[in-house]
Amino acid sequence: MSDYVLSDLQHGKAECRLVTVDRGEGGRHTLRDLNVTTQLRGDFEIAYTEGDNAHVHATDTQKNTVFALAREHGVAGPEAFLLVLAEHWRAQPWVSGTWLHAESYGWERLPANGHSFVRGGAGVRTAWVQTWGEQTHVLAGLRDLVVLKSTGSEFHGFPRDRYTTLGETDDRILATSVSATWRYAPGATDLPWDDVHATITAALTDAFATTHSLALQQTIHAMATAALDACPEVEEIRLSCPNTHHVLVDLAPFGLDNPGEVFVAADRPYGLISASVARSGEPVPQAWVGLPGTLA
Amino acid sequence: MSDYVLSDLQHGKAECRLVTVDRGEGGRHTLRDLNVTTQLRGDFEIAYTEGDNAHVHATDTQKNTVFALAREHGVAGPEAFLLVLAEHWRAQPWVSGTWLHAESYGWERLPANGHSFVRGGAGVRTAWVQTWGEQTHVLAGLRDLVVLKSTGSEFHGFPRDRYTTLGETDDRILATSVSATWRYAPGATDLPWDDVHATITAALTDAFATTHSLALQQTIHAMATAALDACPEVEEIRLSCPNTHHVLVDLAPFGLDNPGEVFVAADRPYGLISASVARSGEPVPQAWVGLPGTLA
Amino acid sequence: MSDYVLSDLQHGKAECRLVTVDRGEGGRHTLRDLNVTTQLRGDFEIAYTEGDNAHVHATDTQKNTVFALAREHGVAGPEAFLLVLAEHWRAQPWVSGTWLHAESYGWERLPANGHSFVRGGAGVRTAWVQTWGEQTHVLAGLRDLVVLKSTGSEFHGFPRDRYTTLGETDDRILATSVSATWRYAPGATDLPWDDVHATITAALTDAFATTHSLALQQTIHAMATAALDACPEVEEIRLSCPNTHHVLVDLAPFGLDNPGEVFVAADRPYGLISASVARSGEPVPQAWVGLPGTLA
Amino acid sequence: MSDYVLSDLQHGKAECRLVTVDRGEGGRHTLRDLNVTTQLRGDFEIAYTEGDNAHVHATDTQKNTVFALAREHGVAGPEAFLLVLAEHWRAQPWVSGTWLHAESYGWERLPANGHSFVRGGAGVRTAWVQTWGEQTHVLAGLRDLVVLKSTGSEFHGFPRDRYTTLGETDDRILATSVSATWRYAPGATDLPWDDVHATITAALTDAFATTHSLALQQTIHAMATAALDACPEVEEIRLSCPNTHHVLVDLAPFGLDNPGEVFVAADRPYGLISASVARSGEPVPQAWVGLPGTLA
Repeated sequence: MSDYVLSDLQHGKAECRLVTVDRGEGGRHTLRDLNVTTQLRGDFEIAYTEGDNAHVHATDTQKNTVFALAREHGVAGPEAFLLVLAEHWRAQPWVSGTWLHAESYGWERLPANGHSFVRGGAGVRTAWVQTWGEQTHVLAGLRDLVVLKSTGSEFHGFPRDRYTTLGETDDRILATSVSATWRYAPGATDLPWDDVHATITAALTDAFATTHSLALQQTIHAMATAALDACPEVEEIRLSCPNTHHVLVDLAPFGLDNPGEVFVAADRPYGLISASVARSGEPVPQAWVGLPGTLA
Repeated sequence: MSDYVLSDLQHGKAECRLVTVDRGEGGRHTLRDLNVTTQLRGDFEIAYTEGDNAHVHATDTQKNTVFALAREHGVAGPEAFLLVLAEHWRAQPWVSGTWLHAESYGWERLPANGHSFVRGGAGVRTAWVQTWGEQTHVLAGLRDLVVLKSTGSEFHGFPRDRYTTLGETDDRILATSVSATWRYAPGATDLPWDDVHATITAALTDAFATTHSLALQQTIHAMATAALDACPEVEEIRLSCPNTHHVLVDLAPFGLDNPGEVFVAADRPYGLISASVARSGEPVPQAWVGLPGTLA
Repeated sequence: MSDYVLSDLQHGKAECRLVTVDRGEGGRHTLRDLNVTTQLRGDFEIAYTEGDNAHVHATDTQKNTVFALAREHGVAGPEAFLLVLAEHWRAQPWVSGTWLHAESYGWERLPANGHSFVRGGAGVRTAWVQTWGEQTHVLAGLRDLVVLKSTGSEFHGFPRDRYTTLGETDDRILATSVSATWRYAPGATDLPWDDVHATITAALTDAFATTHSLALQQTIHAMATAALDACPEVEEIRLSCPNTHHVLVDLAPFGLDNPGEVFVAADRPYGLISASVARSGEPVPQAWVGLPGTLA
Repeated sequence: MSDYVLSDLQHGKAECRLVTVDRGEGGRHTLRDLNVTTQLRGDFEIAYTEGDNAHVHATDTQKNTVFALAREHGVAGPEAFLLVLAEHWRAQPWVSGTWLHAESYGWERLPANGHSFVRGGAGVRTAWVQTWGEQTHVLAGLRDLVVLKSTGSEFHGFPRDRYTTLGETDDRILATSVSATWRYAPGATDLPWDDVHATITAALTDAFATTHSLALQQTIHAMATAALDACPEVEEIRLSCPNTHHVLVDLAPFGLDNPGEVFVAADRPYGLISASVARSGEPVPQAWVGLPGTLA
C-alpha cells in the first residue's frame, strides 16, 4: 500500500443555496439565486494519509465564506461572484487551485410591483471559475434549455448495415435539451456577464430555429459557430444534446392517416450527440477539468 | 379470504406522452404537449378474482385510443381532449366511470419562424375529467408555479409554547411553489379553456404579489378568493403551498450586518399549508376522488 | 367574496429528517431514519381570513416538537413515534385533528462492527397516524418495492375493439413497483410494528411470486388477500401498481429468434392498476383523507 | 466561421434499457438488467459541417446492435457485454473509437421460486469500456452506495480563520454516498467480473466501517487503498464522496440534553471530497475521458 500514488485531491462545500436581494431604488428589487459549490486543490495530503487536518480549510468554513463574501462584495452574477471567491481562496495558505461552480436560476418580475417574482424555466444558467496557481479560467453555459422544431428537419443518407432498420425521413420533429459550456478568453475577466450570456443564448436558440437540419450534428455545429460568431471573447464551446425522439404514431391499424400531426414523445433510449468548436486549435485542458462535456 | 370485500377498481394507461402539431396557416404551427393518463372504473371484478379478462379493456387499447382520438378529434387542449376521451369510454361496455388526467407543458414560440419553440417553465398546467355514470366533473389546475416576494411578508403573533423558539419578523422573503386545483361548475363543459386557465393563473400570481402577507395562510386565502372572483365558472379551489424558507444568514460572527440582503434557501423541512375555498358549501366529493389536495 | 366557504385547513412542517441512534449495549447501535411530516387541523380560520396567527402553532414549533419528543420518548419506529406526536398535539389548544406521516428508510448492518450500516433499497416503509377528535387511525405501507417475475405470467382473453392491437401472450415478464397502504383496526395501537410490517411485506412479495398470473389485477388481488390473511389487525389494504412493461424485442429483422431472452424495459406509458380489499364492507373514509390510493 | 476548429465528436444511443433472462436449468432464471449507452468517435465531420450522413452509424442502428448482440453473444455482465460491443464497433468503417457505458441494477431472488426477484438497492453498479484505435480500457465502479457510521468518526485540528465557526468534535455520525470508479490493467479483459466487483465493493464498505475516521479524506484514502489491495488487476481508483451531514440537534432550549441520540439529516449544502489513488504514478488520461471523477 505504501507505494500507491495519491492525486487529484479536492474538498469543499457543494450546493450552497445563496439568494441575495438588492433593494435598489424605488422599491425595484433585484434577485440573485445561485447554487454555489467550492472545491480547493492544494497541499492536503496528510488529511488523506494521516487524518491530520492542519491544512484543511473546513468545508463549513468554505460555506461561511460564500455567504460572508456575498455580503462584503455583493453578488453581481455567477461569474463575477465566483471570481470574488477565486481571489479569496488563491490568497489562503496550502491552496494551489480552485474549482468553483454556480448554477443561476432565473426569475421574472411579476407586473404588480417591484418585489414579486415568478421563477422562469427556460434552462439553468451555469458558470465555472477554475484556478491553477495564477492562472484563471472562466467558463459559462446553460443546461436544460429545451427546444423543438415541428418541421425543418430531415434525416437520410446514413449507412445501412445488417442492424439498420430506421427509415429515412424528410420531415420530422427535432427536439433537444441543450447543454452548452463555453470558455472565455484568458483576459476576459470583467465582461458584462449577464448581457454576454443573453447574447450567446439567443445565438444558440436562433441557430437552432433557423438551421434547416439534415442531422442533429449539423444543428449542433451551427449553434456552436453562432455562439462563437456572437461573442468574440468566447474561445471554445462544447455542446451535448440528446435527440429527444418524437415518433410519428402509426395510426393505419385504426384506418387513420397521420400527416405529421400526432406524435409520441419517447423517454429512453435517446440519441446523444456532442462536439466542441474552438476559435483556434490550441486546447486548454486545465480549464475543463471536472466539467461536463469533457470529451478529450 | 372469501369474505373479503373488493372495491375501488381502476385500470388504465398512465403517462401517454402525446404531442400534436397543428400546421395551421402561413407556417405558424401550434403545439400541444400532453401527458395523458386514463383510468376506467366498472365491472372488472372477475379479472381480480379469477384472472378472467373478458371485460378488461387492455391498457394498451386505452393507449391506442388516446392517439387515435387525438387524430380523429384533434387536441384543443387538455380539458377538451379529456372530455373527448370521457365520451368515448362512457359508451363502452362494462365501464361505469373514468378518471382522466393530463398534464400540459407550455412552449413559447421562438422569434425566428412559426415552427420553433422553447419550453417555458412557469409551472405545469393540469386537468382532470372524472365521470361517474352520466355525471361529468371537469377540474383543472397547475403545479410547480414557483413565486417569491422579497418583501411585504410578516409573521408574528403566533402562540409560544415550551417548544417554540422562532422569532417574530416584520419583513421576510415569502416563497412557495403553488399547487392549485379547481373544479368547474357541472354545466361548464365548453369553456374557452386556455383563456380561462390564463385568467385564473394571473389572478393567483397577482394576489400573491399584491397581498401584504401576515401569514402564508392569508396569502393562500387571498389567492383562492381571487381565482373565484376571476372566473364565475369555478365552483371550488384547493391550494397546497410549501413555505419555501429563505433564512436570513447570521453574519455577526464575521463582523458583518445583514439588512435583508443575504439568504440561504433551505430544502427540508418546509412549512406546508393548504385550504379549500368554495363558492358555496355544497361539497362534491366524487369530483375529487384520487386528486391532489383531497383533504376531506 | 364574503360568501365563499373556507374548509379543509391544514398546516404543519413537512419532511423533518429525523435520525436517531440508540447506542444499546455492547456497541451494537440501532438506527431509526425517518422523514416526518406533521399537519394540524383545527380552529385556524382567522389566520386565513385576517392574517391573525393567535391560534397558529408555528410550523417551526411543530418541527421542534418532532425533535424534542424524539428525545423525550425515543423513536421505537414510525407508527409508534407518530402516535407519540398525535397524543401531544391532541392536547394542544385549537387543534381538532392531525395528519401525521413518516417515511422510514432501511439500513442493514455491515459485518465489521455494531455501528456501521449500508442503506438497503427494497422499498420505503410508510406510516400515517390520523386523528379526528378522539378518533385515532393508524395506517402503514410501503412504496417503491420493485418486483419482477421472468415467467409465470400470461395475458389473454381481453376484448378486442377497433383500437385493440395488442397480441395475446401465455408467457411474459411481469414487473411492478408496489405501493401498498393498509389500515389497522381501531384498537390496534400497540402492535409490534416492525414485526407486523415485515410479515405483511413478506406476504405481499410471496403472493407476487407464487401467483401464476393471468392479469396484474389477479396478482394485486392475491397480494392484498395475502396481507389480510397474514395479519388479523389489518382491516383494509389498498394497492396501486404500475405494469412496468418489459417488451420482447423483435429480432427477426436481424435474422435472430428471441425465445424469451432479450427484453427492453419501457418507461412510459405504463399500465396502472389499483384496488382496495377490506376485511368487511364498512368503509372508514376519514382514515384515508390525504393518503395515496384514496380512490373513493 | 470557416476557421473554427471542430473536435471531440461523439454520437450514439443513450440509455438502452436491456433486460435479459437466462432460463438456466431447473427453473432457476438469471436476470441481467442494464442501461447501456454507446458513443462512437471517428470520421464524422461532414455530418456536422454539411449535414452529410454518409458516415453516420445512426443512433437507431446503434440501439438495434445492442439488442441483437445481446442475443448473439449473451450478456454475461456489464463489462463483458461492453467488450462485445467494443469489438463490433471497432470493426466498422469510419469508427476510430468508442465510449461505452452500462449501469447494472441488482435483483435479489425471492425465496418462493427460481424466477421471482426483488430489486435490491445498495448502490448501482457501473462499467465503461473505452477504445481508442486498438487500445481498450475497461473501468468499473458503483454509485449511490449509501453508508453510515454512528460513531468512530472525529473532526478537529483544522485551521481557524476569520470565517471559521465550526466546533471540533470527537464523535459524530459519518455518512456518505460513495461514487467510485476504477480502471483495470490493460490486459485484464477476461476477469470474473461479478466476483471482482463484489470483492472490491466489500473492500470499500469494510474499509469505511473499520477505519476510525479523523476526516472523511482519511476514510476515502483507506477505502481506495483497500480496493487496490483487494484486486491486483485494479490500476487506479477514484472516489468522490459527499459528506452527508447529520447534525446533532440542540435540545437545550427545551431543557433536554442530547448525548448523541437525535440528529437531523441535512440536504444542502454538503461537503464534497474526492481523490484518486493509483498503483503507480503513470496516468492514463485517455481511459478517463468523459467519466465521473475526471479531476485532472
